[in-house]
Amino acid sequence: MLPQSIRDYLLARREEHLAALKEFLSIPSLVNDAPGSAAAARQASDWLAGRLASLGLDSAVLETPGRPVVLALSRPIPGRPTLMIYGHYDVQPSEPLERWTSPPFRPQVRDGCVYARGACDDKGQLFAHLMAVEAWQRAGGGLPLNVKFFIEGQEEIGSPGMESFMADHKDELAADAVVISDSEFFADGVPSITYALRGLVLVELTVTGPAHDVHSGIHGGAVSNPVNVLAEMIAGLHDADGRVTIPGFYDDVLNLSDQERREWQALPFDPAAYAASLGVAELGGGERGLAALERRWSRPTLDCNGIIGGYTGPGGKTIIPSRASAKVSMRLVANQNPDKVIEGIASYVRQHQRPGTVVEFAVLSKSRPVLLDRHSFAMASAAAAMEEAFGRRPVMIRCGASVPVTEIFQRIFGLDAVLMGLGLPDDNPHAPNERFRLEHLWRGSEASAALMGNLSAEKVASRLA
Amino acid sequence: MLPQSIRDYLLARREEHLAALKEFLSIPSLVNDAPGSAAAARQASDWLAGRLASLGLDSAVLETPGRPVVLALSRPIPGRPTLMIYGHYDVQPSEPLERWTSPPFRPQVRDGCVYARGACDDKGQLFAHLMAVEAWQRAGGGLPLNVKFFIEGQEEIGSPGMESFMADHKDELAADAVVISDSEFFADGVPSITYALRGLVLVELTVTGPAHDVHSGIHGGAVSNPVNVLAEMIAGLHDADGRVTIPGFYDDVLNLSDQERREWQALPFDPAAYAASLGVAELGGGERGLAALERRWSRPTLDCNGIIGGYTGPGGKTIIPSRASAKVSMRLVANQNPDKVIEGIASYVRQHQRPGTVVEFAVLSKSRPVLLDRHSFAMASAAAAMEEAFGRRPVMIRCGASVPVTEIFQRIFGLDAVLMGLGLPDDNPHAPNERFRLEHLWRGSEASAALMGNLSAEKVASRLA
Repeated sequence: MLPQSIRDYLLARREEHLAALKEFLSIPSLVNDAPGSAAAARQASDWLAGRLASLGLDSAVLETPGRPVVLALSRPIPGRPTLMIYGHYDVQPSEPLERWTSPPFRPQVRDGCVYARGACDDKGQLFAHLMAVEAWQRAGGGLPLNVKFFIEGQEEIGSPGMESFMADHKDELAADAVVISDSEFFADGVPSITYALRGLVLVELTVTGPAHDVHSGIHGGAVSNPVNVLAEMIAGLHDADGRVTIPGFYDDVLNLSDQERREWQALPFDPAAYAASLGVAELGGGERGLAALERRWSRPTLDCNGIIGGYTGPGGKTIIPSRASAKVSMRLVANQNPDKVIEGIASYVRQHQRPGTVVEFAVLSKSRPVLLDRHSFAMASAAAAMEEAFGRRPVMIRCGASVPVTEIFQRIFGLDAVLMGLGLPDDNPHAPNERFRLEHLWRGSEASAALMGNLSAEKVASRLA
Repeated sequence: MLPQSIRDYLLARREEHLAALKEFLSIPSLVNDAPGSAAAARQASDWLAGRLASLGLDSAVLETPGRPVVLALSRPIPGRPTLMIYGHYDVQPSEPLERWTSPPFRPQVRDGCVYARGACDDKGQLFAHLMAVEAWQRAGGGLPLNVKFFIEGQEEIGSPGMESFMADHKDELAADAVVISDSEFFADGVPSITYALRGLVLVELTVTGPAHDVHSGIHGGAVSNPVNVLAEMIAGLHDADGRVTIPGFYDDVLNLSDQERREWQALPFDPAAYAASLGVAELGGGERGLAALERRWSRPTLDCNGIIGGYTGPGGKTIIPSRASAKVSMRLVANQNPDKVIEGIASYVRQHQRPGTVVEFAVLSKSRPVLLDRHSFAMASAAAAMEEAFGRRPVMIRCGASVPVTEIFQRIFGLDAVLMGLGLPDDNPHAPNERFRLEHLWRGSEASAALMGNLSAEKVASRLA
């Protein structure tokens, strides 16, 4: 049970904590190369390191070939287990800006939620853990176990370079358990622990045709059109059953177990309500004949994230464009290998050349899928903590998104992370009007504090020793 | 034969004429809704009307529901035939701006050409006729026939409303012959008269999916992706043989005559050189198995002019976009009917719906194809005039582009226009670095003046009476 003093402390500090989170959310630490984003990443790192130091942790901002990493370590308590808390301060681009009700980096509280880019993904969820550490330090007689923070700044583009960073910092990152709050509840009122994430391959395809845009009347019929060729190429990536046609794409896909399928069928999932929450008349996409949860969680998918080519201004312009490009993301499931998928795309591209065009593809991001042990003690401790904070036993779910370090923790450190998501399905991560419900911030910080307590228990220490 | 006094006058006035043309080219009379384009259209109309009035023509700027039309009429000479000169002052958008060597509306002379948006299409070609009128008026003892100018400002979007304007102004527009210089030589050194133009249907397809962009990991596999759906729809518009799949698309297409096919085979056409001029390794597009000239001139084609959807900034953003749209132009040949083609697309769109997406299409522009009488007296007069000015008998060709009024003149006025093109294949109309060769401006004005002389001859007057 979480000490009452910690609950009281968190209750008393809500205004102050919200103000601090809003400060963190105001930093435009965009993951992309937008002007000022590198400086903002530095600012976010410094802000985190400063805040963690003020909580009594030994904190540092470490340079990497990409964005800085923040590492922090509580004063060592010999004989106690170590909990690693991972999070990321980078955020997705904010476009389309005109669809935000309030500006993405001017946090605003409405309807019991804080609205800002990164509110849910991942600044708000990460901040709940900082609140828990603060409560233990200031009102719980000190942390009940060793705590480490590992916070990076390129999660949204697949954490490039993070694998070698983690291998290089194996000692500093050593821990007995890892908790990551970068996922979400299955539904409002349904706390959830996630035990699988999809991996990612994100590529950009570019088709170049004539040296410059040419008149579609004078030359139409005599030159391949890069937009048409790109559209053909994208359309050809799925067959009539919605299966991805990249050679070897499904070779390594693990089939869903019957037990999981049964569990998922028991989840409170209403396809019509889910469709309505996305603003579509009915669900679609993915492989025909499979249930929607299966398509999202246990099957790989392929989606264009964006496309551009030729004239896109007002009215018409009758040209054959010189070039066109598209960003295409694939979500991978265990045990697909991103490098093998990339080879498959290279082969697909070679097979789909058209006369007089050149197709290039660039890999923008890649990460492996992960399937975690559902029965670890850390998982059980988190389930109990979630139940205490949110008043309901969490369900076990998968998630279609990616948190690349999860798989690295498993593969390199032998640690199966606990994915204790605090977001809600309608928090709009990666979309306009991203938000985080304040109630989830408050209860999330209690869940984090309870997890620290549960993992610190003698039996845990002996078990993990 | 063109009087020497006219040749001398045109030679002496080159500097002055180039300065005036540059003034005309400086007016950004964009056909689209870009800021300031309506004011620029007004400015271009006024400039033309002013210049035509200064040449002794009775000139007026007439309002239309779209951009103004300039009409001008020389002082009537009873018993003489009337030559109508049609042209357009509107120009294509200039994007991509970064690919212009000099700004599109700051005309610059380089390599014997004037570079500017509209230099060739159509301000430069139109201006050659103004020079011819001026030469006859000032150095030829007055015009040898009646001349009318009819200059519009929406040719590049298919001359919307021009059919009803022309029907409403049937008397003012009555003429014995029409000349239009808005096409090009078959090749450098090969003067050409064009006897067929393709028509146009330009539509915008928009696919809407989720109410806002959603996370491609969390939701990927559960919702149809508007970019993927649009790509499928575009790809499906052609079959494996490059034929357009719109229902009924080829029903009314006139087959090419054997005589024309033979004539085209005799033209100095080098596919490799043509491909190189466009900056492609080899030709492509259109229907498999047909010769390139046939694909450009006598077969309908379908090309995307532009496409946009989702995230197109630097790096990646793993979303399923809320919407995507594409502009698609179809070039039609005799005897296809644009309205029938539009019905076909509507039917195609209905057949290609995907769950949870809405597809809309808007018609941006349409015009009918035209096939002209190759053996009229006006055509023969123009051929003689071209030979006199350029030193070589013109070849008879078709053109894949559209000049919508040509078909309206034929259908409503019974007048088969003479398409006396003065441009060159590498003048880059509709593309960056559009230009017009000064030698073609000088000789083009002589050809126009010679045409006026040829058509004014007694035999013509009697024949056309």
